[in-house]
Amino acid sequence: MAPPSHCYISNGAPQNGVVVPVETGTLPPQDSHLLDPDEFRRQGHQVIDFIADYYARMGEYPVHPSVNPGFLRRELPADAPSRPERDAFDAALRDVRDLILPGLTHWQSPRHFAHFPASSSTVGALGEALTAGINVVPFTWAASPAATELEMVVVDWLGKALHLPESLMFCGGGGGTLLGTTCEAILCALVAARDRKLADIGSRRIGDLVVYCSDQTHFAFRKAAHIAGIHRDNCREIATCRDDMFALSPAELHAAMQADVDAGLAPLFLCATVGTTQTTAVDPIRELSAVAAAHGAWVHVDAAYAGSALVCPEFRHVIDGVEAVDSFSTNAHKWLLANNDCCALWVMRPSLLAAALRTEQEYILKDAAAEGHDVVDYKDWSVTLTRRFRALKVWLVLRCYGVEGLRAHVRAHMSMAASFESMVRADARFEVTATRQFALVCFRLRSPEKLGGEETANELNRRLLEEVNATGSGPYMSSAMVGGIYMLRCAVGSTLTEERHVREAWKVLQDQAASLLRKMEIDN
Amino acid sequence: MAPPSHCYISNGAPQNGVVVPVETGTLPPQDSHLLDPDEFRRQGHQVIDFIADYYARMGEYPVHPSVNPGFLRRELPADAPSRPERDAFDAALRDVRDLILPGLTHWQSPRHFAHFPASSSTVGALGEALTAGINVVPFTWAASPAATELEMVVVDWLGKALHLPESLMFCGGGGGTLLGTTCEAILCALVAARDRKLADIGSRRIGDLVVYCSDQTHFAFRKAAHIAGIHRDNCREIATCRDDMFALSPAELHAAMQADVDAGLAPLFLCATVGTTQTTAVDPIRELSAVAAAHGAWVHVDAAYAGSALVCPEFRHVIDGVEAVDSFSTNAHKWLLANNDCCALWVMRPSLLAAALRTEQEYILKDAAAEGHDVVDYKDWSVTLTRRFRALKVWLVLRCYGVEGLRAHVRAHMSMAASFESMVRADARFEVTATRQFALVCFRLRSPEKLGGEETANELNRRLLEEVNATGSGPYMSSAMVGGIYMLRCAVGSTLTEERHVREAWKVLQDQAASLLRKMEIDN
Repeated sequence: MAPPSHCYISNGAPQNGVVVPVETGTLPPQDSHLLDPDEFRRQGHQVIDFIADYYARMGEYPVHPSVNPGFLRRELPADAPSRPERDAFDAALRDVRDLILPGLTHWQSPRHFAHFPASSSTVGALGEALTAGINVVPFTWAASPAATELEMVVVDWLGKALHLPESLMFCGGGGGTLLGTTCEAILCALVAARDRKLADIGSRRIGDLVVYCSDQTHFAFRKAAHIAGIHRDNCREIATCRDDMFALSPAELHAAMQADVDAGLAPLFLCATVGTTQTTAVDPIRELSAVAAAHGAWVHVDAAYAGSALVCPEFRHVIDGVEAVDSFSTNAHKWLLANNDCCALWVMRPSLLAAALRTEQEYILKDAAAEGHDVVDYKDWSVTLTRRFRALKVWLVLRCYGVEGLRAHVRAHMSMAASFESMVRADARFEVTATRQFALVCFRLRSPEKLGGEETANELNRRLLEEVNATGSGPYMSSAMVGGIYMLRCAVGSTLTEERHVREAWKVLQDQAASLLRKMEIDN
Repeated sequence: MAPPSHCYISNGAPQNGVVVPVETGTLPPQDSHLLDPDEFRRQGHQVIDFIADYYARMGEYPVHPSVNPGFLRRELPADAPSRPERDAFDAALRDVRDLILPGLTHWQSPRHFAHFPASSSTVGALGEALTAGINVVPFTWAASPAATELEMVVVDWLGKALHLPESLMFCGGGGGTLLGTTCEAILCALVAARDRKLADIGSRRIGDLVVYCSDQTHFAFRKAAHIAGIHRDNCREIATCRDDMFALSPAELHAAMQADVDAGLAPLFLCATVGTTQTTAVDPIRELSAVAAAHGAWVHVDAAYAGSALVCPEFRHVIDGVEAVDSFSTNAHKWLLANNDCCALWVMRPSLLAAALRTEQEYILKDAAAEGHDVVDYKDWSVTLTRRFRALKVWLVLRCYGVEGLRAHVRAHMSMAASFESMVRADARFEVTATRQFALVCFRLRSPEKLGGEETANELNRRLLEEVNATGSGPYMSSAMVGGIYMLRCAVGSTLTEERHVREAWKVLQDQAASLLRKMEIDN
């Protein structure tokens, strides 16, 4: 790693051993300079070239850096500079290149197969840049009318593109919004559901409310429930099994809800998942919604990852019955080319959301034009008041790639994942551990009988993942632990990933597996 | 407003009366094209020029558009295009210019004096662009080590620049994080406080917890408390008065807490404000903290707006006693040149935050290098798991402007606000309605006796604000209602605002006031 170029001034103290006399610092910029169009142009073109160069060299970086905790903190001064150094922006960009980029995990690398993708596109990235440049705060309709209206248009566009029912869209009496993350989306839906239920059963009975999910549901749900004041004992994580492809069982849900009712508790909320984080399991929405409806519980569908796949009609079946749900969310930043962050939330009854999250104060400017109209003030649809103009990015992505473009994008990854799966299946040393539903392949190395078979399988695969991820030039993957089985996850979804990267990843896996098995046999 | 240029294809349906045959649509882009460096360069340079042109023409836009609800929704097609039109990106940028910009409220206008500023800088905007381009998801240390470490460095830099005590920084055993908004920051602190208190008094007593603020505290606090499950009856809004400059009274707080204790309730949390939204009132932190400590309540300081002023040592006194508080937050996107969004939260005991918000699941990759180290996983410090690399922007702003640059920025606005205040005071028809503490001036037009004096003053000022905001070429301001008095707010803080804009704004106010008074006298 290159030495830091920080020789700027910080309270006159020596930085990294270099004492810099105060007078070499440039004067602080005049205020008028801070948003100067020509300065913006000069620096902006540098930034664009910087990012383009980064994309061009993406394949050369190890996906994950080989660094230890503290590696960067130790390199940087303890204080911000009093005055900027000479050519501070140029120097800072050099530091981003030489100090920061080498310490990042490169989520855009074509060899990033870990977690779920954080899919980027040129249009998504530039949509964010535009939003930052325009820098409006559309917390009410009046605070930036076009931003609110574009968001209303875009959530309907996106909802239709994903084949959601009109009841969840503005055009059908529902509506949507663009938040940051799934946890926020679930929290908002949950608070709306909670308030409705407490209005019904008595506002002092928060301790009696019970929420439901499966043991595969993302922790974001338990976190949201905890934040919303649901008692930790009142979160039912219903066990799933491999025979059911790790889907939540409606019969088990019914039993759990009935037991709670019998105990004097109040079923509040079901978080069903389409495409779980560990294995992309799909909960049966229609049947689960019927059970929840019988107990007066709100149904939210978390399709954080797999929601993007709904852009392809061939996947519509995974949300069969979605007409009955109260809310639905998906992360457009995961697999739909809208850079981080962007979670779309749709609700069937926006008035319940607003009733729970509304704020009113005099300093909120009312617009005379909005009087008498039922305008949407998005501050009443989310945790936050301040918000970003995320709609611009999503609108640009839909405009510039079209629904067909998004389909092609998703299908390309599905096809690569299918290839990877075939390669796993063709090698008898490995097995596919969960039925592939989207572009995630869960698999593991079988442990040979002489090495201890099942008892050592988990340890073997842990070591395999460590070895593979340590190659630097190879793929970067993550793992899941489901039903006691440790498995590797290959999530195809980086925009830059091509068929060859998938083949190369498999080759590295095979080589590391062979080497690991050899080593263990010798050790044995 | 120019007609929309949307003649792209959407399910073959006519758009705006123009039927476009399917074959004229361009083919969806190949996946490899979606993050192509050359394409990014081409589109990126366009976007930079677009934003620079916007800044150059900023003064020409009316700050607030004259539009009616539905104006944009009616102009746009009901569906996203199936395939992109030819030169879709260029066409979309034209639509941003011709359709969207004219419908926005221009927060960067030098004549935007409403709400609080959303201060932009070239470096802040480009920091966001860089973050979007790099597009990493630093939810754990391992998920992008340099991003986590830079955030740890930057919150300490910022805390020191703002003269916060080391007990709130990593270097002093505390620590900070960069979130989106104040409401999130308060919610996180509140959940940490709630869990600590419930561990103490019994986990089933959430209904007994009471939170405290003043009648001037931003609604974000009540919203956060409501989300966290605090009963609406258990939020004490303590009345303030003009004689105390609308500050929260420690004696009143003590009385309220004691009454709750006597009633068997448990004081949980005080949200003190430094720089309230309506009049920038400053709550006395030292005295309030002593009262809260005596009752075991957590103290959070919300300095959303005025926190930025702490970069100037002459304002340090407004947080006297801050060493005793549990948490502190400020919005760097309001007045510190870090574009929307960026709220810095510091806490004295990070372990309490993590205990309340931690998540653990197998798919979260552990890094071998992090084993045995006490690394910060920022997902455990916030509502969300997915998060943006906001530290990059703040680091760039501090590097490129320096602490002195930020001071000059704040002081320039202070000085302009002082000028505005002097002009108000010099005109006997007007009065300053709240002591100016930072760069916000609260004022009103006095109602002449013959028009009804006090009884009509509020109505008169409402009309004045409407008239001023309707001029289009004039300033855009907002209002407050405090102690029954309706006042106008002139918040100086847009980066592009210069002394002349403040003088021009005052001239428009005087002219509109004269005209309004004339009109009312005639009507009388």
